[in-house]
Amino acid sequence: MASDPVKITLVGAGTIGLSFAALHLAKGATCLVTIYDTRPDLQSYVSTHLPSYLLDIDLESCTNRLFYASNVADAVTNADIIQEQGPESAEFKKNLWPEIEKHAPEDALFWSSTSGIPASIQSEHMQDKSRLLVVHPYNPPHIMPLLELVPSPHTSQSVIDKTLDFWRNRGRTPVVIKKECTGFVANRLAFALFREACSLAASGVASVEDIDSIVTSSMGPRWAVAGPFKAYHAGGGEGGLKTFMEKIGGTVGECWNASEEDVRNGNIRVGGDWQADVCRQSDEAYGAADTSERDVKTKKVLEAVRP
Amino acid sequence: MASDPVKITLVGAGTIGLSFAALHLAKGATCLVTIYDTRPDLQSYVSTHLPSYLLDIDLESCTNRLFYASNVADAVTNADIIQEQGPESAEFKKNLWPEIEKHAPEDALFWSSTSGIPASIQSEHMQDKSRLLVVHPYNPPHIMPLLELVPSPHTSQSVIDKTLDFWRNRGRTPVVIKKECTGFVANRLAFALFREACSLAASGVASVEDIDSIVTSSMGPRWAVAGPFKAYHAGGGEGGLKTFMEKIGGTVGECWNASEEDVRNGNIRVGGDWQADVCRQSDEAYGAADTSERDVKTKKVLEAVRP
Repeated sequence: MASDPVKITLVGAGTIGLSFAALHLAKGATCLVTIYDTRPDLQSYVSTHLPSYLLDIDLESCTNRLFYASNVADAVTNADIIQEQGPESAEFKKNLWPEIEKHAPEDALFWSSTSGIPASIQSEHMQDKSRLLVVHPYNPPHIMPLLELVPSPHTSQSVIDKTLDFWRNRGRTPVVIKKECTGFVANRLAFALFREACSLAASGVASVEDIDSIVTSSMGPRWAVAGPFKAYHAGGGEGGLKTFMEKIGGTVGECWNASEEDVRNGNIRVGGDWQADVCRQSDEAYGAADTSERDVKTKKVLEAVRP
Repeated sequence: MASDPVKITLVGAGTIGLSFAALHLAKGATCLVTIYDTRPDLQSYVSTHLPSYLLDIDLESCTNRLFYASNVADAVTNADIIQEQGPESAEFKKNLWPEIEKHAPEDALFWSSTSGIPASIQSEHMQDKSRLLVVHPYNPPHIMPLLELVPSPHTSQSVIDKTLDFWRNRGRTPVVIKKECTGFVANRLAFALFREACSLAASGVASVEDIDSIVTSSMGPRWAVAGPFKAYHAGGGEGGLKTFMEKIGGTVGECWNASEEDVRNGNIRVGGDWQADVCRQSDEAYGAADTSERDVKTKKVLEAVRP
């Protein structure tokens, strides 16, 4: 960042905005935060709700570094970072960024928290489209480490790098998504499982509560420790993911139940060309699987959630 | 169980068999475990590998209660519970159970650890099909709390109830699956997310390692604390899952991208009849959502996995 202390302006003070405000104030000891929102009761609203995001944290040391702005120009004029979480409307965002661009310092970073409107659309009317990228949190960002960084084809590498640096220094987990796509990655993954969960509940195989109970006592704690590729790679023993797919690929395929039309529509099926590439990537990333550290950590996770 | 101490016979000493042996010996202070397997080096194999499943546990107090059998008759003749994790072959299992039935006590429980062959098929040649059910673990069972109890239409309620009691008394999470289906529930859910993960990796949206990193920093820790229904129910605020679907159902639907043929094949799409039922179930199960306990527990989970 250009300046120290870092000056961050949040446009939009809904639950995501407040959560980011809490994160910036708590994790950046000298960070200055300005909030802009059109709601008339902004200050009293923030004063009422922000403390619940800052439990166990010295509230005064945080609110001393919190400021309010009543228009976009004032809000962004001195900012190093402008982070937007306004209404999920392409029109709103397309009109907002040129206005911000007019008043913000030349090297300020522009981040959108959108869960669905890609930077390539939001930046349509901007002079310099290289400045904007999506920084999509997993709700609530003051708790969850993930930030999906989704650049448009116009976003400059230097903006991506500075954004990565910022979040790594904050101890979070920023991940750059290589192509803009609907829902980005985290929601696509979660919605895929959610679809199967809804389908099983709808067909009476298990109740909503039983399905939740199944998730929290199996893949939830597992995936808190190791993601699906790493977990199945370990499940294959010495042969890694390739062996796992050889052993259990038949059942995987029956569960996926891909039709010909599915495959024509671009859906994958077990044994396609993609499989060798994914197995090779898993080998390179994880090599010989060691499950002992995984098991120790999984026990700790289960301990942490015990009622 | 009929007797105290409980006598459990494990048929099959692969990784699942050893993990169950460790679980029974460690969690049941007086439990007696007999292992039967056709491998000629059974005793030395078990002595070599079992200790790694019993870290932090007094090994001698466990192995004092461990026995071996060299044929099915000897293995099951005094058992309260017979738990099978042999080869995943329908023929093997269909032939095994009548042999076990011949020698086991009348009230012994019969459990199969299969991940794919339903009890209705396994029990085909049994005299009394009401005694058998699938007790499918999430690997490894000495760590993961979940047991999927999958009865066949023949399994008696009393066998199901005794099995539930057993696992609840062990502090595990047994869940009864209401209908036999391919992959049961946990694997179906996990494979659905895994499919989307493979698809995103295959299309170059994110690398295998980045996808794993996304999961461990977002839905993994979330789902260790609250399953997908409870999590999205909370995400909808006061209106619960219904409001969540009203707000974000459009994006969910775009991610699912259900074709007409999908729907004809029984796949669900956003807004179908199933949705009201799933929302009602979530309301009944969870009522007004409280995220503060969730956030405290999520922080503990993230603390537990920190490198």
